[in-house]
Amino acid sequence: MRIAVIGAGAMGSIYGGHLALDNEVYLVDTNPKVVETINDQGIRLEENGEDHIYRPKAVTDTSALPQMDLIILFVKALFSRAALNGNRNLIGKDTYLMTLQNGSGHEDILGEFVDKDHIIIGTTEDQGTILGMAHIRHGGTGGTNLGMLTPDAEGMLPKLKETLDRCGFRAKIHENIQQLIWNKLFVNVALSAVTAVLNVKMGFIAQDPHAFALSSQLLHEAVAVAQAMGLEADEVHLLQEIKETSERVPEGITSICADLSAGRKTEVDTISGSVVRAAKKCGIEVPAHEFLVNMVHAMESRPKQA
Amino acid sequence: MRIAVIGAGAMGSIYGGHLALDNEVYLVDTNPKVVETINDQGIRLEENGEDHIYRPKAVTDTSALPQMDLIILFVKALFSRAALNGNRNLIGKDTYLMTLQNGSGHEDILGEFVDKDHIIIGTTEDQGTILGMAHIRHGGTGGTNLGMLTPDAEGMLPKLKETLDRCGFRAKIHENIQQLIWNKLFVNVALSAVTAVLNVKMGFIAQDPHAFALSSQLLHEAVAVAQAMGLEADEVHLLQEIKETSERVPEGITSICADLSAGRKTEVDTISGSVVRAAKKCGIEVPAHEFLVNMVHAMESRPKQA
Repeated sequence: MRIAVIGAGAMGSIYGGHLALDNEVYLVDTNPKVVETINDQGIRLEENGEDHIYRPKAVTDTSALPQMDLIILFVKALFSRAALNGNRNLIGKDTYLMTLQNGSGHEDILGEFVDKDHIIIGTTEDQGTILGMAHIRHGGTGGTNLGMLTPDAEGMLPKLKETLDRCGFRAKIHENIQQLIWNKLFVNVALSAVTAVLNVKMGFIAQDPHAFALSSQLLHEAVAVAQAMGLEADEVHLLQEIKETSERVPEGITSICADLSAGRKTEVDTISGSVVRAAKKCGIEVPAHEFLVNMVHAMESRPKQA
Repeated sequence: MRIAVIGAGAMGSIYGGHLALDNEVYLVDTNPKVVETINDQGIRLEENGEDHIYRPKAVTDTSALPQMDLIILFVKALFSRAALNGNRNLIGKDTYLMTLQNGSGHEDILGEFVDKDHIIIGTTEDQGTILGMAHIRHGGTGGTNLGMLTPDAEGMLPKLKETLDRCGFRAKIHENIQQLIWNKLFVNVALSAVTAVLNVKMGFIAQDPHAFALSSQLLHEAVAVAQAMGLEADEVHLLQEIKETSERVPEGITSICADLSAGRKTEVDTISGSVVRAAKKCGIEVPAHEFLVNMVHAMESRPKQA
């Protein structure tokens, strides 16, 4: 397959690197230094304690490239639309767009560029940490979960699973991929932005009754939205899962918390914000989510020393 | 009148000091050093740039004192119940309890100690800043607004107004004192806890659209509660007032913000929390207030260095 991976961050490099073993892969990034390093030295992935070199072709400018069979989006979700707009020429009528980005609802932006039956959504359980320029630690490889919003008329999912598996991933096709995405989202919305505004590690949520009340209120709203979307959500069970996640990784720092502390723009719109958007579609109110999303944005903009 | 003022903080000292000009006043505080200083040197109030000495009698132990005509509560609201419990012997069947504390709903705790027709609630526009031991700057003297929850059968309010006026205050009796208390509360709930969790000065609220959205959401909930209580609340007008307050005092730091920054327990339960309690009585949901109150408490308990 001819594949473009947009975004040479940790996850883009892992997928782009591995998929190049069996496909014609273009790794697209706006940073010329990253692109140059990848083309010179390849992508170095530290996997199971050993460095492996992968050699996708990296580019900043895709204007000379042909249309792709598949485009995988690995930019931060707040750049998704810009990234697709900037590489429109890669998208033909047979091109599939795929997202494994954090959060939910990414299909709305993808749907601005291709028909619904050419959108693949999912999650990845693989983990990546940037160690240096084109040098990434590829942590615990888990499943790559794939699904579509419509019947897979052209049999794209099995084809994709085959090449992912051949390239070292463990792909799984799901009939109800939204359910899987939301299963992951529940824990994420209940922990990520809350730890960020409190500026605490993950363990604090299970320890402090007031912090846990915040997570509980968020979960309660997210469950109502999921149920209105026709998804299953067992609030009692999920609350237990949130508690256990907090206890299992007490020193963990969520990505929104890390970004906020470092003064970077966060992905709160992708995570908590996606619940707000989904709620609006269902005509449900999620006041705690709205409040929290505004609070994170206000914190992104506040003066450095208050 | 025989009056006990409980709490020799800034406001207790101002009221206790002035009222002693015309009444038998006992200023009650748990801090023996403050009590000793007051009895030795009096209370020094800096008023219009000059120091004035006032001489109420100060005590830590009230067990030898007779029942009072009036007890004014000037402790932090989270200590109200404990303060009244510790000085129960001052309360007889003819004793009036009065609160001018910040926030709303203080009558619920007062009602545990006296009948409803012996409760006086209100607000004060006077301002006090502690400069040292028994040394307070008495800032802008405004009105002392007084009212009752039942008809004033014994004519206590005019009597109280008379002595307050004689002692240098400007007392005003209000038929609908809850309306006045809530008029003050709206701006308070929309600014105080929000600036605290954001750790920003007052001016940020009018400057930042996301921060202003937080205040707007809080006001919207508080207005719904007030209307359910039968009070008047013009949301558009109040929102404008909030904006103007933020713009008028851009460098202002709210009391909850100051307490939270200093690692002290805040009065959030008195301010935002009083809206939550009032909402419960009316059967109204105030999710943003609940979320915010839990957030402030979680911040009070979080580890110092996250």
